[in-house]
Amino acid sequence: MRNPGFDRSLCPVARTVERVGDPWSLMILRDAMHGLSRFDQFRISLGIAPNILADRLDRLVAAGLLERRRYSQRPPRDEYVLTEMGRDFRPVLLAIMAFGNRHFAKEGMASQLVDAATGVPAEPVLVDARTGRSVDGPGFRLAAGPAADDQVRARMAFADGMTGA
Amino acid sequence: MRNPGFDRSLCPVARTVERVGDPWSLMILRDAMHGLSRFDQFRISLGIAPNILADRLDRLVAAGLLERRRYSQRPPRDEYVLTEMGRDFRPVLLAIMAFGNRHFAKEGMASQLVDAATGVPAEPVLVDARTGRSVDGPGFRLAAGPAADDQVRARMAFADGMTGA
Repeated sequence: MRNPGFDRSLCPVARTVERVGDPWSLMILRDAMHGLSRFDQFRISLGIAPNILADRLDRLVAAGLLERRRYSQRPPRDEYVLTEMGRDFRPVLLAIMAFGNRHFAKEGMASQLVDAATGVPAEPVLVDARTGRSVDGPGFRLAAGPAADDQVRARMAFADGMTGA
Repeated sequence: MRNPGFDRSLCPVARTVERVGDPWSLMILRDAMHGLSRFDQFRISLGIAPNILADRLDRLVAAGLLERRRYSQRPPRDEYVLTEMGRDFRPVLLAIMAFGNRHFAKEGMASQLVDAATGVPAEPVLVDARTGRSVDGPGFRLAAGPAADDQVRARMAFADGMTGA
């Protein structure tokens, strides 16, 4: 299950999933977004085995989303804080949160994003920064980019034909 | 690794990760978004073992993101198509794609979302539908919702203190 080798693919989804697309890594990033940083904080929050937690923290550091910082010399203790790249993952987690709230919050929303001033729940939607239009609509389509190889081009052509865009 | 039991948590991120937050499920959803629907299409695209693919398709059907449809009676063959819930996961995948393009596309972008009319690459950002403001900024904060239990409330209070929002 680990390391299925998606990175050989040029696909940006594959490359991200390869690095952070497993349950524990995503939950660690959620916790980091909530301000947790110490090994024991993650361990207790997630009920995760120490060896698995250590592995995932190492992987997230190697991928560039977390940074290891020593906060105590005696005993030696590290904390793990989001890098700029790690903070840039926040919209992904917020999109997941919004999806979970729409579909799996059978008891009602337990946690949500709210307007800091008014407390009104946000309705997160993904739009194009330039035009303000929803990217999840007919105005946008998937396309091969300058670095595409034949495999990506074939895939994008297929996707384009399917959506009719 | 499978089924870490996050669902006992009320957290909408945990509930989503529990259902679709593993590498293969995310890649299957990517492929489904690209228009793939048949077992062999997924198998060839992902280089995934048939028993693992069958397991993940079953799980995605059970979670409500894919629907099984028989397209051939002799021999019996099913295809797997996105449900309305599955299509609603698209913004998550597009946010992952944008993140991967920003951080892991060392050769340049291989695939990207473009304006269907002009071909100009989109810059996907997550905003509040009502106000149009970026939700990934100081104007919004995480908060406990009506269904929060003590654990969620403690977590949100901690997160709030950390961000200073």
